[in-house]
Amino acid sequence: DHYIVCGFGRVGRQVASDLRAAGAPYVVIDADAANREAAYAPGVRFINARPSDDDALRDAGIARARAIVACVDSDAENIFIALTARELRPDIAIVARASQEENEKKLRRAGVDRVISPYKSSGTEMARLALHPNVTGTMDVAAEYRLEEITVQPGSAGDAQTVGDVRGGSYIVGVRAADGSFRPQPAADALLAAGDVVMAIGTPRTLERLEELFTAGSSVSTGD
Amino acid sequence: DHYIVCGFGRVGRQVASDLRAAGAPYVVIDADAANREAAYAPGVRFINARPSDDDALRDAGIARARAIVACVDSDAENIFIALTARELRPDIAIVARASQEENEKKLRRAGVDRVISPYKSSGTEMARLALHPNVTGTMDVAAEYRLEEITVQPGSAGDAQTVGDVRGGSYIVGVRAADGSFRPQPAADALLAAGDVVMAIGTPRTLERLEELFTAGSSVSTGD
Ligand SMILES: [Ca+2]
Ligand SMILES: [Ca+2]
Repeated sequence: DHYIVCGFGRVGRQVASDLRAAGAPYVVIDADAANREAAYAPGVRFINARPSDDDALRDAGIARARAIVACVDSDAENIFIALTARELRPDIAIVARASQEENEKKLRRAGVDRVISPYKSSGTEMARLALHPNVTGTMDVAAEYRLEEITVQPGSAGDAQTVGDVRGGSYIVGVRAADGSFRPQPAADALLAAGDVVMAIGTPRTLERLEELFTAGSSVSTGD
Repeated sequence: DHYIVCGFGRVGRQVASDLRAAGAPYVVIDADAANREAAYAPGVRFINARPSDDDALRDAGIARARAIVACVDSDAENIFIALTARELRPDIAIVARASQEENEKKLRRAGVDRVISPYKSSGTEMARLALHPNVTGTMDVAAEYRLEEITVQPGSAGDAQTVGDVRGGSYIVGVRAADGSFRPQPAADALLAAGDVVMAIGTPRTLERLEELFTAGSSVSTGD
């Protein structure tokens, strides 16, 4: 019931730190002996070997492990880790990192359950923040629906309006006030104020309208 | 009303691709002439210079630009870009990438509005997927509240229960069915089925209970 972290670079270190914070035991496999010291933590084993090596994975206790996290900075090595791990444990959960978008499919074909692309997701996040500065968070929730966190700007059309006034075709599922307090599923008569962060589920069209309503100097009007 | 993309590595390419997809005009500044070809797209200017150089930023039209996206693979250079940009345009929006967590503060002090950390956020995402395999997405919505997408596993205690049966102290704000259809803000009598992905807002404690309810072989029981 432990985890195997393959690769102890910048991503692997964050994985290990989060597993430790969650109280989850883990073993680190890394080909670079220089990472032994950085990986040191009480009770943590460091195996100095290529993580795709079947002996290294056996030594790390793959037979009893809960999941493998392949975060080497080489897509080829992560693919090789997945293939070796699948051979030894057809049922184990494998999470892997992809540096190049075109390798995501190959990783899945090699048996990876979940692929994470650091460069792609952060590039997309940076473009989104530049394009929509008052949208602080977003999540795709279904083919046509997205969830967005939108800040109500002072002097915007949505400032000092109620949830019912502004929501239109979107669903407002929560509001975080500037003081950090949170109102989940606010009623239609709940009042919005500048600095509130509105969590809304909607289609791109209905959310774009909300973004405009909450942007100062925009000319869109509320439904009332 | 254009964007300035500083650095055309793996992150910068994704930023450019997303800006292009949104129909937003942009200029690329990169110190490596070898990236000129990769940056080529109709109407896109490539400036071969250090992006932190004031002349390069002026040449890129910083006076009229909407935002600067600093995604060089060097935190020092991104800090330098922010300082130069702030001097030329105190009011411009700056989004920057941090490779090392300890530089996030320095970037903010240099005038960056939003900092993105590719290694940190993907490491955290990978650890989360390994620790909570049926939680496919998550978002911090307030100090005590998080939004999670949780898959209802076949044979779990929550399978074939209603929203009202399972929600406890959490708020179920949407359900995506296996066929991709989406029910926003489902009523208390809405029935859940295996394969549904439940979007719930709650505290760590109430969400952990939901995760267990939707995990096969877990012993937790619903409120009914
Ligand atoms: Ca071997
Ligand atoms: Ca100069």
